[in-house]
Amino acid sequence: MTRIAIAGAAHPHVAYATAEVDAVDSFELVAVADPSRELAERWAAPYDAKVFTDHQAMLREVEPDIVMVAGIYGDRGQAVVDALNAGCHVIADKPLCTTLADLDAITEAVRRTGRHVTLLLEKRYYPVTLAALEISGQLGTIHGVTASGPHKLNRPTRPAWFFDRAQYGGLLTDLAVHDIDAGLLFTGLTSGTVSGFVVDTSYGVATLSGPGALITAGVDWMNPAGSPMHGDYRMKLVGTEGTAELLWARNRLVVTTTELAPHDVPLPAGHRPAELPLQAFAAGNEPDITTARGLLVTRLALLAQQSAETGGVPLPWTTP
Amino acid sequence: MTRIAIAGAAHPHVAYATAEVDAVDSFELVAVADPSRELAERWAAPYDAKVFTDHQAMLREVEPDIVMVAGIYGDRGQAVVDALNAGCHVIADKPLCTTLADLDAITEAVRRTGRHVTLLLEKRYYPVTLAALEISGQLGTIHGVTASGPHKLNRPTRPAWFFDRAQYGGLLTDLAVHDIDAGLLFTGLTSGTVSGFVVDTSYGVATLSGPGALITAGVDWMNPAGSPMHGDYRMKLVGTEGTAELLWARNRLVVTTTELAPHDVPLPAGHRPAELPLQAFAAGNEPDITTARGLLVTRLALLAQQSAETGGVPLPWTTP
Repeated sequence: MTRIAIAGAAHPHVAYATAEVDAVDSFELVAVADPSRELAERWAAPYDAKVFTDHQAMLREVEPDIVMVAGIYGDRGQAVVDALNAGCHVIADKPLCTTLADLDAITEAVRRTGRHVTLLLEKRYYPVTLAALEISGQLGTIHGVTASGPHKLNRPTRPAWFFDRAQYGGLLTDLAVHDIDAGLLFTGLTSGTVSGFVVDTSYGVATLSGPGALITAGVDWMNPAGSPMHGDYRMKLVGTEGTAELLWARNRLVVTTTELAPHDVPLPAGHRPAELPLQAFAAGNEPDITTARGLLVTRLALLAQQSAETGGVPLPWTTP
Repeated sequence: MTRIAIAGAAHPHVAYATAEVDAVDSFELVAVADPSRELAERWAAPYDAKVFTDHQAMLREVEPDIVMVAGIYGDRGQAVVDALNAGCHVIADKPLCTTLADLDAITEAVRRTGRHVTLLLEKRYYPVTLAALEISGQLGTIHGVTASGPHKLNRPTRPAWFFDRAQYGGLLTDLAVHDIDAGLLFTGLTSGTVSGFVVDTSYGVATLSGPGALITAGVDWMNPAGSPMHGDYRMKLVGTEGTAELLWARNRLVVTTTELAPHDVPLPAGHRPAELPLQAFAAGNEPDITTARGLLVTRLALLAQQSAETGGVPLPWTTP
């Protein structure tokens, strides 16, 4: 059996982990810890998992193999470090953490323990993304990536911590990480600058610029209530031989090339967000979204947020 | 009669002026000057207009009321100044000029002569833009504007000067000015910072950030040959009460609000690019695209280009 525990259940992405427990016989949910006992109980009950309000106590008592971290954003960094120190692998909802100090502590704990941290970047596993990776060679050299990620705020149902900068971490820290990751994936960028701008904590843009490539990731919490979808997530890839529009929310990939008019590309099946990472851990492997990658894209999102809070000055970065 | 002359005919937008001569009985095309006599002759012939290779000689000899400037980009600044000094109003294809020194010289000539310079910002007069201005109040406070302006390069038919930085002026100088202007129009932004990034002279983004608003204008010369259109020009407005998608190339305006699902807004008729400006000049008025506005948006595009060529550092700006 692979023993999975949850350290922090404030975000409903906890379901990414429980979906795998539901799907895979050899996965067992052994415990759920959250400062809110009620919340921990709600997620634990269907699995007869143990309930804790202190994740340290949980780690000592149940000794899980893998820890899913999905608590209040500001609490995640410490939970990840504690789980690593307890000898566990970590599967973390984004954002991984909310400060560069947190990230340094996680980086140090990874190095010391040899355990893995995989960040749940579920856009990687959407059918549209998989198809785009498959055909990206047809686009030539990809010079430009533009993404937009509008989200509905649903103000009445958002918890209070979401509006506390210290606990939330900022718009770009939270939302830009998916498109930063995808942008790096499609361009192969490994160094450059990152800058950011945010308006009123609810609308922002992160920009990555490096040799031969420019990635612009717009994100916001301003999608109108009248919209039929949470957000019309899109990404456009602009290459020397063609362009691709990834219409994630519409499940379409539209490609135009030097020779071919716009056409829809057939899509493969996708994967559930935690499906491949948990299978990799169970098999003793590092997930395809590596520890180094999760740390890098988190650093870039945190730097974009820092840039946004200091006038948009571009900050240098390089792959470690 | 209103006597119109053309000083520089390198760009086919010369047709913006001749279309008005065709449409309005009281407009007369009296002369065309271009360093290429062949080019000048081609535009002059249908109107029996005089032909010059030197615009200074033309200005002295025919004493026009209005001068249309549409030459090689790097030559435009001097042509604008010379036309102003000759006592003419100027209607200028974009870019107005290619350097901040040119712009300063134009600004000085405007102040000294009291003549007007109107910049041909034809997106202003598209049906979609007019409709968006009409309904923009439904969107609440507009915090975000994102534009994308892909263009086909059509390499074999581009003249050589287009690939000479000194004569062309740069991607953002050339293409970003329309969306910068529209962004200011919808947000009312009057100061802030402007930054830019360009990849390989062919793909770039200009960003304007100021109190309560963020404008991102992506432009490129990478639209694939297989595309059915020159470019799928788009702009999205994100407000506190709704969003609008201006799909210029598709002639659609799609609005979503807090209460209403996405819906198409009926479009009015548009105006030809030079229609209102030339009528304003003929009536003795300043065009709705004022001299101050043309100078401002040109300055912003030049600053974005300067930022792009110096690492993307945000440069401060304010409305004079």
